[in-house]
Amino acid sequence: MQIRPLHDRVIVKRVEEERTSPGGIVIPDSATEKPIRGKVQAVGKGKIMDNGDVRPLDVKEGDTVLFGKYSGTEVKIDGEDMLVMREEDIMGIIED
Amino acid sequence: MQIRPLHDRVIVKRVEEERTSPGGIVIPDSATEKPIRGKVQAVGKGKIMDNGDVRPLDVKEGDTVLFGKYSGTEVKIDGEDMLVMREEDIMGIIED
Amino acid sequence: MQIRPLHDRVIVKRVEEERTSPGGIVIPDSATEKPIRGKVQAVGKGKIMDNGDVRPLDVKEGDTVLFGKYSGTEVKIDGEDMLVMREEDIMGIIED
Amino acid sequence: MQIRPLHDRVIVKRVEEERTSPGGIVIPDSATEKPIRGKVQAVGKGKIMDNGDVRPLDVKEGDTVLFGKYSGTEVKIDGEDMLVMREEDIMGIIED
Amino acid sequence: MQIRPLHDRVIVKRVEEERTSPGGIVIPDSATEKPIRGKVQAVGKGKIMDNGDVRPLDVKEGDTVLFGKYSGTEVKIDGEDMLVMREEDIMGIIED
Amino acid sequence: MQIRPLHDRVIVKRVEEERTSPGGIVIPDSATEKPIRGKVQAVGKGKIMDNGDVRPLDVKEGDTVLFGKYSGTEVKIDGEDMLVMREEDIMGIIED
Amino acid sequence: MQIRPLHDRVIVKRVEEERTSPGGIVIPDSATEKPIRGKVQAVGKGKIMDNGDVRPLDVKEGDTVLFGKYSGTEVKIDGEDMLVMREEDIMGIIED
Repeated sequence: MQIRPLHDRVIVKRVEEERTSPGGIVIPDSATEKPIRGKVQAVGKGKIMDNGDVRPLDVKEGDTVLFGKYSGTEVKIDGEDMLVMREEDIMGIIED
Repeated sequence: MQIRPLHDRVIVKRVEEERTSPGGIVIPDSATEKPIRGKVQAVGKGKIMDNGDVRPLDVKEGDTVLFGKYSGTEVKIDGEDMLVMREEDIMGIIED
Repeated sequence: MQIRPLHDRVIVKRVEEERTSPGGIVIPDSATEKPIRGKVQAVGKGKIMDNGDVRPLDVKEGDTVLFGKYSGTEVKIDGEDMLVMREEDIMGIIED
Repeated sequence: MQIRPLHDRVIVKRVEEERTSPGGIVIPDSATEKPIRGKVQAVGKGKIMDNGDVRPLDVKEGDTVLFGKYSGTEVKIDGEDMLVMREEDIMGIIED
Repeated sequence: MQIRPLHDRVIVKRVEEERTSPGGIVIPDSATEKPIRGKVQAVGKGKIMDNGDVRPLDVKEGDTVLFGKYSGTEVKIDGEDMLVMREEDIMGIIED
Repeated sequence: MQIRPLHDRVIVKRVEEERTSPGGIVIPDSATEKPIRGKVQAVGKGKIMDNGDVRPLDVKEGDTVLFGKYSGTEVKIDGEDMLVMREEDIMGIIED
Repeated sequence: MQIRPLHDRVIVKRVEEERTSPGGIVIPDSATEKPIRGKVQAVGKGKIMDNGDVRPLDVKEGDTVLFGKYSGTEVKIDGEDMLVMREEDIMGIIED
């Protein structure tokens, strides 16, 4: 199943951040706090401006993005938890 | 009975998702959670922009769409439960 | 008495829907639930856009329309209950 | 005393509706419910649009208009109760 | 001390309305209710429109204006109580 | 330390108004009420309009201005209490 | 890890202000109150205007800025606490 987001919406899959305790033991994220990074799965064609023009989005498929803890709407696609949010809700793109 | 939605409104019929339990038994959706997919039945002519232009919608009759659990207004058409919502409330189009 | 609605307002008269019970007995609507259909009695000249233009409405006198249960303001005209609402509040036009 | 309303404001004087009981006795309005009709006493030059243009109003002095029970601000002019409201608050013009 | 209001603001001084009781005794306004008339003391250069233009105000110094009981902000200028409000808050100009 | 305000913001330093009691004793302002005058210390380059233009402010450094009791955000600059507010929050310019 | 903020967002790192007590002892900021200065780490390409144009920001990397105590969203980047906020939330640029 594939979802083509409308307009300025993007589909994001949360990225679990591994954490290593001082002693080197990996602490799964659920033991610390909810992550706010994600990988963009799909993007809409762009934001509809007041004059009817469509402005393409600045994020693209594959980008790792940062977003607020409560951004987006949870949706299950092919059994996987995804988030649908507006580009507006994305704070920035992470470059490693 | 046929309904022609006004402007940027669309009429959507919820799609019940079949689910199969580990043992292969189909669990009807009502036993799990409310679906948020639907099939577009009819669409308006388009959104009226600030300058009076009409911008045709991006969804069309027959599209399977994704929308928030509480989107739209319930309405009964020919005995069937339908939802009338704005294109704005639709998150994306599902392509199988 | 005649009312000429201003701008994007329309006057609608609720339509009572007859319902027939399985045994063929007609159940007047008040026994089931409040209808949300109506017949347009009069329409304004159009919506005033931001630039001052007037955009004619898409609904016209005689149309049967669908609207939310709590849309519009009740007003009595010549002893009959009518609703004054904005075209914006109308979800669609019913074509039988 | 004369009041020249500003912009898209109008001054309206409520019209008391006479009502006749089945036996022919006139029931003064205060005994039933608050009227929502009025006679326009004066109108402003027009609504200031976003671009600075002034759009003349559609109602004019002498029109009998319909408005919501709680529209406008009460003001006493020469001892008479008047309402100052925006044209926006007027639902329609009554033509007898 | 002189105050030059900014943009679409005006400075208004409340006018106390004398009232005469049936027996001819003047009842000072404070004994009845708060007046909502005032005399314009100074006006700003005009309202800044969305495109950056300045639209001169329709009220001018010396006008007697009508405004809502709770309009404006109280300010003491040279020991006198004044009100600073936006032209928007003024309902009309009183012509005697 | 110097602060260059952004856009339509201005930095204002409250002016304490001396008050003299009937007997000639100066009552420091804190004994009466919070002043709402101030001296402009710095102004931004101007307000960003919807079309992206920058409209220079009407107040300038050195102006004595009038503003609402609760306007602006308190900030300490070089040990002195200042207020950062938008030009919009300033009611007028005081000319002595 | 590097974050490229979207549109009119900026990433800011709070600056701890050292304070010296009368006796010359440095009081770390946490003992007094939360600072509201910060150093800009990265800025977006600009604000998207209503017509789709992008207006570059006025703050740039390296600027020391002033912002409200509750502005922005906290985010941890490479173990350091940062704030992501809109340029709109920044009051001014500090020049020492």
